[in-house]
Parts: sequence; C-alpha cells; structure tokens
Amino acid sequence: MSTTTHLLDFLEEPIPGVGTYDDFHTIDWVREKCKDRERHRKINAKKKESAWEFTKSLYDAWSGWLVVTLTGLASGALAGLIDIAADWLNDIKEGVCLNAMWFNHEQCCWGSNETTFAERDKCPQWKSWAGLILGQEEGPGSYIMNYFMYIYWALSFAFLAVLLVKVFAPYACGSGIPEIKTILSGFIIRGYLGKWTLLIKTVTLVLAVASGLSLGKEGPLVHVACCCGNIFSYLFPKYSKNEAKKREVLSAASAAGVSVAFGAPIGGVLFSLEEVSYYFPLKTLWRSFFAALVAAFVLRSINPFGNSRLVLFYVEYHTPWYLFELIPFILLGVRKSTRFGKYPILEVIFVAAITAVVAFPNPYTRQNTSELIKELFTDCGPLESSQLCQYRSQMNGSKAFVDASPNKPAGPGVYAAIWQLCLALIFKIIMTIFTFGLKVPAGLFIPSMAIGAIAGRIVGIAVEQLAYYHHDWLVFREWCEVGTDCITPGLYAMVGAAACLGGVTRMTVSLVVIVFELTGGLEYIVPLMAAVMTSKWVGDAFGREGIYESHIRLNGYPFLDAKEEFTHTTLAREVMRPRRSDPPLAVLTQDDLTVEELQGIINETSYNGFPVIVSKESQRLVGFALRRDITIAIENARRKQEGILLTSRVYFTQHAPTLPADSPRPLKLRSILDMSPFTVTDHTPMEIVVDIFRKLGLRQCLVTHNGRLLGIITKKDILRHMAQMANQDPDNIMFN
Amino acid sequence: MSTTTHLLDFLEEPIPGVGTYDDFHTIDWVREKCKDRERHRKINAKKKESAWEFTKSLYDAWSGWLVVTLTGLASGALAGLIDIAADWLNDIKEGVCLNAMWFNHEQCCWGSNETTFAERDKCPQWKSWAGLILGQEEGPGSYIMNYFMYIYWALSFAFLAVLLVKVFAPYACGSGIPEIKTILSGFIIRGYLGKWTLLIKTVTLVLAVASGLSLGKEGPLVHVACCCGNIFSYLFPKYSKNEAKKREVLSAASAAGVSVAFGAPIGGVLFSLEEVSYYFPLKTLWRSFFAALVAAFVLRSINPFGNSRLVLFYVEYHTPWYLFELIPFILLGVRKSTRFGKYPILEVIFVAAITAVVAFPNPYTRQNTSELIKELFTDCGPLESSQLCQYRSQMNGSKAFVDASPNKPAGPGVYAAIWQLCLALIFKIIMTIFTFGLKVPAGLFIPSMAIGAIAGRIVGIAVEQLAYYHHDWLVFREWCEVGTDCITPGLYAMVGAAACLGGVTRMTVSLVVIVFELTGGLEYIVPLMAAVMTSKWVGDAFGREGIYESHIRLNGYPFLDAKEEFTHTTLAREVMRPRRSDPPLAVLTQDDLTVEELQGIINETSYNGFPVIVSKESQRLVGFALRRDITIAIENARRKQEGILLTSRVYFTQHAPTLPADSPRPLKLRSILDMSPFTVTDHTPMEIVVDIFRKLGLRQCLVTHNGRLLGIITKKDILRHMAQMANQDPDNIMFN
Repeated sequence: MSTTTHLLDFLEEPIPGVGTYDDFHTIDWVREKCKDRERHRKINAKKKESAWEFTKSLYDAWSGWLVVTLTGLASGALAGLIDIAADWLNDIKEGVCLNAMWFNHEQCCWGSNETTFAERDKCPQWKSWAGLILGQEEGPGSYIMNYFMYIYWALSFAFLAVLLVKVFAPYACGSGIPEIKTILSGFIIRGYLGKWTLLIKTVTLVLAVASGLSLGKEGPLVHVACCCGNIFSYLFPKYSKNEAKKREVLSAASAAGVSVAFGAPIGGVLFSLEEVSYYFPLKTLWRSFFAALVAAFVLRSINPFGNSRLVLFYVEYHTPWYLFELIPFILLGVRKSTRFGKYPILEVIFVAAITAVVAFPNPYTRQNTSELIKELFTDCGPLESSQLCQYRSQMNGSKAFVDASPNKPAGPGVYAAIWQLCLALIFKIIMTIFTFGLKVPAGLFIPSMAIGAIAGRIVGIAVEQLAYYHHDWLVFREWCEVGTDCITPGLYAMVGAAACLGGVTRMTVSLVVIVFELTGGLEYIVPLMAAVMTSKWVGDAFGREGIYESHIRLNGYPFLDAKEEFTHTTLAREVMRPRRSDPPLAVLTQDDLTVEELQGIINETSYNGFPVIVSKESQRLVGFALRRDITIAIENARRKQEGILLTSRVYFTQHAPTLPADSPRPLKLRSILDMSPFTVTDHTPMEIVVDIFRKLGLRQCLVTHNGRLLGIITKKDILRHMAQMANQDPDNIMFN
Repeated sequence: MSTTTHLLDFLEEPIPGVGTYDDFHTIDWVREKCKDRERHRKINAKKKESAWEFTKSLYDAWSGWLVVTLTGLASGALAGLIDIAADWLNDIKEGVCLNAMWFNHEQCCWGSNETTFAERDKCPQWKSWAGLILGQEEGPGSYIMNYFMYIYWALSFAFLAVLLVKVFAPYACGSGIPEIKTILSGFIIRGYLGKWTLLIKTVTLVLAVASGLSLGKEGPLVHVACCCGNIFSYLFPKYSKNEAKKREVLSAASAAGVSVAFGAPIGGVLFSLEEVSYYFPLKTLWRSFFAALVAAFVLRSINPFGNSRLVLFYVEYHTPWYLFELIPFILLGVRKSTRFGKYPILEVIFVAAITAVVAFPNPYTRQNTSELIKELFTDCGPLESSQLCQYRSQMNGSKAFVDASPNKPAGPGVYAAIWQLCLALIFKIIMTIFTFGLKVPAGLFIPSMAIGAIAGRIVGIAVEQLAYYHHDWLVFREWCEVGTDCITPGLYAMVGAAACLGGVTRMTVSLVVIVFELTGGLEYIVPLMAAVMTSKWVGDAFGREGIYESHIRLNGYPFLDAKEEFTHTTLAREVMRPRRSDPPLAVLTQDDLTVEELQGIINETSYNGFPVIVSKESQRLVGFALRRDITIAIENARRKQEGILLTSRVYFTQHAPTLPADSPRPLKLRSILDMSPFTVTDHTPMEIVVDIFRKLGLRQCLVTHNGRLLGIITKKDILRHMAQMANQDPDNIMFN
C-alpha cells in the first residue's frame, strides 16, 4: 500500500479536489484520458532515476493485467460459490441430506452404493421433508407436506432476499446491466459497484435463485463481476484515480461476468463489446478476453456441478430446414412493460408465493431452470431416461435394449410432457414478466431462454411427429428418408432459446457466440444466426429498443446510445442554449470580474460550467471553467492566499491586468481554465454534434458563429432534444 | 439496373463532381456520413408517395445485407476454386492422373480399388513424371527426372505468376492487407480493389501457391474477398456513391476473407475488428459475421479437400506446463526488413528456383504447407502412418497391433524426422523472409505458422523424450505418471504456430480465436493465449509495429494507427501550419474576392482546401472550402451561368454584397462552403487533436486563438509530426 501513496505524491493537482466529479454527474472522457497520459508521462520520465522508480513504473505498467486477473479470479470464485450455494438451497426446498446437511441432493446420493444409474436421484440418505417429518415418502399426505415445505422455503428465501436488499443495499436489485451500461457510458453512481452492493447482491442472488422465482443469475453475475472489478481497481492508483481508466476495468469485468454466467469466454468479450461497453479500445478487448478466460477457468476448476461446465451440451444436428418453423416462436420477443406495486417486500412475497404454488406440481417448472433448458436441448439417446424421450418403440422391450433409432411415434410420456410443457410455457411467460421488476437480484437471460426452449421443443416434437405420420409430404420427402432421424427437437429448443433471448435483449453476434459456446458446435451457428436475426427484425418492428435500453429510458439515466442513429436535420443553433426566450448565456470575462461578482454569477445559476470570453463586446471565446473547480479554487485561495478579498479581481489570462494601486491582490484562475474547449459552429448539423459527443465522450460543447460565442450544448440538451424528436417526454432525463 | 439509375436521380449534387475524391486522397468521413444520412432521409420521405418508392426504399434498406451476402458467396466460391486449382497444380509438379487429367493425386486414387488404406497415396492411375517419361517409377534416374520436372513446373508457375502481375495488375502482388488497412482508414487507391486486380490475383495466387514458394494464400484471400466486396458494392448506389459506406462493406469482406482462409468465421470477424478495420460500427460487426458465415458455408459445401474443413484438427490436450517451453520459440518473431532487387521477374524466378531445388529432397518442405501444419498438429494415434509417429514400441509387432500408449522412446523414424524438420525450419525461415516482398500474391500466415509449428513440434518431441528418459525429474514427476501420456508434441506445434504468427502480425484476440476455430477445442485457449501474449510482449520489446504496420510505413501510406498511442506533450500551435518561418496562411475572404483573385490563390498554392474568413482584419472564421470543389464550381458557373467574368465578385455569404452598379454578375459559392469546419484552439494538446482525427476520421482541422483563425492541421501534418517525434523521416509520408 505504501507504493500506492507514493505514486500519488506527484499526481496531486495543485488545488485538491479539482478534477473530481459529483455523484450523478457525467465524466469528461477527454480530460480523464489526458490526465492518464500525463500521469504516464511523469512515470516514464522518472523511471530512469532509480531502481525504485523503475519498479514503480513496472508495477504501473502491469497493474492493468493484475487488476483484470484479480477480477477474473474473484468473479470465477464468486460464480462458483453462488452456483454451489444456490444449488444446495434449491434442494433444501425439497428435502435434506441426513448424514451431511451441506450436501445437495446429487452429492448426497453420490456416496450411496444402493442406487442404480437409472434411479440415480433416489437414495436412502436423501430424505424429503415428508419423509423426515411424517416418516413416509409416498402418498397424498407426503405430497401435501412436501408441497407445503416447498412453498414455505420459497417464501422464506424470497422474503429474506428482498429484506436484505431493502435494508442494506437498494442498488443490489434487478439485473444491474442497464445501470452498468450507463456507468460505462460515463455516468457516476456512487456505491452502485461498492462492496456492500457486492456482498448483498451475492447473498440475495443465491436466495432469489433458490426461491424458485422465474429469474436467472446471469445478469446479476455481470453486476457482481463489475463490483469485483471496481473494488480491485482501488488497489491501483492508475485506475482508482481515473474514471475513464476505471471503466476499462469494468468493461473487462462485464466480459468476465458473462463468461462465468454461461461458460462462454469469447461470448463474454463480444457481449461486453456489443452490449455494455461505451469506450472499448483494443487494449481493453485483449484484457477482457484474458479476464473472461481466467474467470471461466476458475469456475471450471471449482466445478460446481461436477461436470466440465465449459460446454453445456452437445446436440447432434441433422436437419437444415429450421427456417420455416422459426417464424412462429420468434414472435415470442416478450417485452416487459409494466411494474406494479409500491410495496417491494409484499410484491416479492406475493410473486414468490404464486410461483411456488403453481410451480411445484409441474416437474418442468419445479426443477432448476438451467437444468430444464439442458433437458430441453438434449436429444433423445438410449441412455436418456427423461419423460420427453418415452417414444413408443421404447415402450415394448427392456430398457437396455432401446435403440437410438429415430423418428418414432410419440409415446404417452411425450404427450404428457407436451401438456406439462405448454402449461410451463404459459406460467413462465407470465411469471417472468412480473418477476423482472421485483426488488431482488433478477436476471432475464435464463428465463427468456427457458421460454424459448420450451416453445422450441414443443414445435420440434410437433414437426417430428408430423414428419413421422406424413413422411410423404413434399417438405419431408426431400430430407427425411424413412428410418433416418431428420428432426432434432433439441435443436429446435436451442434455436428457440436463442431467438427468444435475442428478441428480449436485441443482442446479435454475442448471443450467437454465447449459445455456440454453450452448446459447442460450429455447425449450429447458421440456424442460430437465422433465428437471432429474424427475432431481432421482428422485435425491431415493434420498437427498436432492447430491454436494457427501455430500462435505461424508464429510469431516466443520461445514456447516449451509440447504436441509435440520429436521423434528424436540426442544426446546432436550434438545440443550443440559451433559446430565444431565455436570458443571455452566463459567461465570465477573462480579466474584469471581482471575486464577489464571480460568486454572484455562480450562485445565481445552476450550470455546471461557464465559458470564459475576452470581453462582453467581442464575445470571443477564451476557454471554459467548471463550476465545481471555480468554487473549490476560490475557497482554496481565500483559505490559503493572504489578501484575497471579495473585491479582488479574478483573471484567467497569463498576466495580471493592470490595476489601480490600492486594489487588493488579484486572483489568478488560469490553472482551472480549460483552454481547449470543444466548439462547433451554429451551422453544424446535430448529427455531427451527436457523433462528436458519442465518440469523444464530451459533457458539453460551445457553439460559435463566425468566431463569436453564441451558446452551449450539453449532453443533457442532446438527450432532451432526442427525446423531443422521438415524441417522448424530454423532462424524463433526470440526472446530469 | 434501372433501379440503380432511378435511385441516383435525386442523389445528384447541384454541381456535378462536387463531393468526390481524387486518387491517393483521404476521404472526409464526417461529410460522407452526412451525405448518407441525407440520402436516407430523402428515401424515407419519399417512400410513402407510391408503391414503387416504397419498393425502392425496401431495396435500399436491404442492400446492405444483399451486398454482404453476395460478397460472402463470391469469396467462398473463389476460395474453393483457388483451393482446388492450387491443389491440382501442386500435384502436377509431381505427376499426372492418367485417366483424368483434371484429378489431383488424391482424387485420382479414390477411384482405384487396388489401394489399401495404408498405401492410399499409391495407385496405378497416378503416374509420376518419371513413370510417364522414362517408364519407371523407382531408381535414381527417376528421382532425378522427378526432381527436374518439379523444378521445371515450379519455375514455370512462378514465372507465369510474376509476368501476369507485372503486365496486367501490379496491385495484385503481396498480401494486400497493408493496403486494405490503409484503404479502410479512408485513403483512396483506385483500381486496388478492381476487377482486374481480382482476376489476376486469383489466377496468380493459384500459380504462386502451386509453385511451392514459401507463401500462403490466406492474406491474398482477404484481398480477393475485398475485391468482391468492392465490385458488388457497385450494384448498390448506397455503397457505390459513398466512400464511408463502401468501407463498411470492405470490413465485412475482409472478415469473409479470413473466414474462408481458415474456416474461422468468428476469428474472421475479430480479425476485421482488431486488425484491418478503422470505422467499425456495430451494424458492420453483425454484417461481417453474416458475410463470414456465408463464405465459410459456401466453401464448406464446395468442400475442396473432401473433408469437412470447418475444423482442421482436434488435438488431445494433456499437459498444462507449456509456459516454460514457450519462451525459446516465441523469439521466432521473424521480422522482414529487406527487399532486394529491382528486377521483379528475375527475383521471383531466382527465389522459386532455390525454393524448388532445396524443397524437393525434404518431404517436409516438398509437401503442401497446410498439410505439413496439419501433420505437425496431429497427435500420434494408432492409425497414424507418419514418420513422426514411428516410436520404438511400434517397431516390434505388427502394425495392426500398435497401441496408442504414450511416452514411448523415439524410433529411428522420429530421429530422421527431427533432422528433416530442423533443416525444413532453417529453410522455411530463410525462404519466407525472401519471399514476402516478391511481386507475386504472397501471404504470410501459413509460412509463419509452419515455422512456428516445426519449432514447436521439435521442442515437443524433445520434451517428450526428456520426460520419458528422466521421468523422475521434479517437473515431470508431478504431471507425468509412468505409463500415461503427459506430453503432446502436437499441442506444442499448435502453440508454436500461434506464437510465431502472433510475433509477426501482433494479432491477439483474433489470432487466438482463429487457432481455436482451426483446431476446435476450447481447452487449448489458455496455452494459446499465454503463447500469443508472450510473443506479443517479446515482439513489442523489439519494436511495437506488426508486419503490416511496418509495410504501411515503408510504403509511406497516410495511415493514422488507432492502436498507437500519442504520448507527447506538444500543442496544436506547434504542429499547425503556417510555421513561424512560413508565408501566412492562404485564406479566402467571404465577400471581397473576384473570380480572378480566387483562381490566382488556387493556382499559386497546392493546398487541398482554404479557410474562409470574415475579413483580413478580424480573422474570424466562417467556413472551409475545398480546392477541388472551388475549381469545379467556377468552371461550372463559367460554362452555365451567363455573365460570370474574371472580374465577377465571389461571395460565400447568404446575400450578395452591395456592388457598384456597373460590376458584373457576382458568383455565389455558399453551396460548396463547409460551414461547420472542425476547429480546435491553439492550446489544445496534440493528443486530443490526434484523438479527434482518429475517431472522427478528419482530413483537416482549423486552429483558432480567442476566436481568430491562426492556422490549419491536416492528417499529413499529424503523420509528419508523429514521424518526427519518433525520429523517423517525416518526408516518407508521400501521399495525401
């Protein structure tokens, strides 16, 4: 830690506090990057002075890799912990392991010698609650007992989760991705990525997942990873003292989060690039990749599920004519739009109760959602004992003799499964819509994928049976020879899952890569891509925003979307302030204000900064001074410098103006003056202005006409203007 | 095609020719993007007028997808064609198929029933040249005959290739990637991506590969794909009329090129993003992905090698301690620095002759380089008949009885193979250095990978034998139990190939993903990444530039690298022109020049554009006018408008200045005036200026001080300044 403080010595600004930001303000990317280069130059210049300085420069150069490594390690470990804990808590709802409380159902039965492979779920050590309390495992009484205990535990977990979130860390609710997008775009929300949020989010995520609510842990894992990234960046002054550099770490952390959520490192990097990041230099791409890999491998060595998690499941791919069937279930681009209730705790308990009551009787809603998805993706092989695979040829003959031969007529198990799947589909759709708005950590990835997978599997089985009974139809004749397996319902489930997730989030490349990495087959990329593309187009027809963008807009975060094109023909002078009816622009002149006048201007207005001009007559622009910096500088001067009075002259020029002999000592404020403010002419089309704001990450831009200052455009003005052009309420943009 | 001309009707500028570019000039990204948005708005406004306009707007909206689909299809097809033709020509060097001339060696023997699996290379239909001419296949005479014919064909192919390139399309030589990078950054090189280049490059690439020169087809395939993209973009006015939009197509095309070169669609997209593209919006990412997939699947259905090419080879991965061994062969970051000879044809023949003479006797240099790489990557299984797998346990006992059991002592075959590999390594290193500079299409990927793979395999076998004979050493004891296979020489080859390629090109993420897609195993990403990372660091220690950047610098292209950080503290006023010793800046005043004076200013100077100011006294900036536009506008006016004389007043203001009654009709040039030129203040640090140039793709930027025009900074000034700061010759930047 002594290194940290040493490094800071020469980084100190002449006036402490200048160059920092208030909460809910937007950072100035250009200034931050300049600050970083300055720091870098200082270290480089010093490094030849001594071995110690050289070591410090090495430490500085490596700190980027160190911080992403630490972030990757921590994200992987936390994800493993969450997986194990959620799995255990989830099984607690159904029963308990007698000889070892801390074993989940599967681990409990591993040690048992009395189980066969077919009945690997049943062993004497694992007692259901009915078995434990009533002493009997079968019968209606036990069923009701188990049902009751299931609801009891689900409600307890949900209550605990919402209580913890409400009391300790309100920022821990939701998926966190919209807020992370906003933070990465340069907004400051203090505490959103802090240690309390991390702790509470981790704990409540376990509880929320175990409660059986229709939510996933994938989005919140991104938030958890970003918290890790933020916390570790405090160890390195390069990142903790620079908001722009810190965001590079956060980009890498979000890649690590997706990487551990799905076991998809490349998908994680592309997700970070496509979905959440704002400023993504190539160096960050490389580091994100590294963080994602480290995280994936840590999770893999923790091995929370006892299988190599990097590839979830392989599907055999046979049929190339997915395209026709895709259209119906792509329409499932479910959009969340309402939220009910002002009573978060009651709301959560209510939703959790309904979920538990309805979920228990149906095996497809009772089980873990990721297990459900896995089962739906799985093709029916000879070893598969799932109800979904009870085709009729399996019914006669012993189980060991079952052949994997394809295109069988469906047996009663399949029909029962289809009904249960249909009910599960309706249930999941309704519950997911209500769940994604609750004040608990709640991800949308897995529920969306489950909905798509259920729909896909139903369609897949339907097409398969159609092909069996009507193999003389033209469409089937060409691909399906009699006796060969031409339809793979599991593939339909996979494609459906991708399509649904694509409809909700509008992810494209990253989604395809994630699902590809989840399932591990390059061959399926084409149907996946077709599905994701179609679902994006269908979704875009209903509205261009993905769920995260909608969320950002609903919350009124000042987020300037890089994807959304500005297509209007307005000019800068129509957007700039002051408008025609407004009072004139509040400006400072470079050398004829007194401290009192300056303080007057600052107190009368609420602007974040003021242009400095040569004189009121010429209106020629000199620079820009931030409100916060002026206030700090004046306070600092009055505290430290003798002779600074209210009547002291303030000047921004290089040399003090000539003053009468008896006047008090003047105050030089040149050091806080930004002498290279961005300017555009009043004729500049707004599309160019928006482009400049996005690409350079500006906070404000001054507008001139023939060299004379006319007005100012801030990021908020642009967002208001864009909302106005899209017929939305411009006052919804709250912060900045 | 009628649609095309119709669409053009309303796109015509008021003055024809305004808004186009000369050869070897840089485009103005901002202007191009504004033009595109304008076009888009016009189409949108018109689309409700009639069904025809609506169809046109649909065509326009879909043209992006159409053009990338066509590009993908064409690239895939051409790559298949090149593969087949090169394979056939390559075999021609050794012999000919008697019953079907157009079959290569492998295809020739497919039909034969007389071959066993072990001797699948030998069949009576395939005659070596000795067999055909001398009538005997064995013996020293035949060997010399075959040797001679091999050299004869190699020289013929090389001669034909260099002749075709020299006579018909000089742009077809080399890999093309440096030039494509420069073009994508906004430079115009007419004909570089034209149909002649495409045709000649395709033909000569086949010849060059078949000639046995140490070059690969991967880089040139990117050039071929970009030619396809450029040619197809002419079908769509949206792309053909807009240089910025055209570059989006080219980015997608380069992804398709890498995709077919390696069968790696995701790697292709990342290559395009990381290595070649300059402006890469998310829309382009998605389309690149699509183009890459289409291309990969076309190639796959052509199936030029008779196997599913999407995954080249799977390697079983056992050992995690690659890191120690990596360091030696990462040093192989071979850097090309010299080129000899001003006689391209002689040079090519000379190199081809040496290559052929030396390559023939050694089986590892005679065979196709990609086959060599495949053999080196391959692990020794029971079916492997390669010399590299002749371990001693295989020597006793029949071939069918060979077990795949590991860590055997090397047999004589392996020792012989190692010597041949060492010779091949030296040969490949020398020949590759000389080959990459010849005036034939020449890629660097495959030769670099081959060098790395040979070195890697040698190291791998050495470590394996070390582990066998010294399995009690500390390092081996932990991982290598006796009797288990702990060292996989094939993996070493793979890691070596990636490391070497990484050292040469400085690719990072894309390289890892390409090799991952080539070999198809997520497990190998970590050793790959470690290797690529180390090789990049080692390479960066010798110099930060990859081979493409060096090539760009050697050729003096005006390329502003987005990866290279500008770390100096200079200010805009130190870089801007005019310097202190220069004559004052050539400016135009807004309303008091005559046509004659204006022409005088244009003729006296060679600047590409001129700032327009209010008056010489105030120096307040009004806008910027391009030389080319002024010339065209004056010519156009003198041709069309009556009464425009040399004494006519030229004005850029909204209203004509008040003139004496007898003066000739004034000429209004406001339409060619850019009223929103980019300006920075003279105090702006150059790091910000460079950032603005990169991110917005500017050509020039005006410098002001307190609202007064001081000077101008062009892209060329920045490149010169950067060269100066890096102690390079600033006059090397030739164009712009």
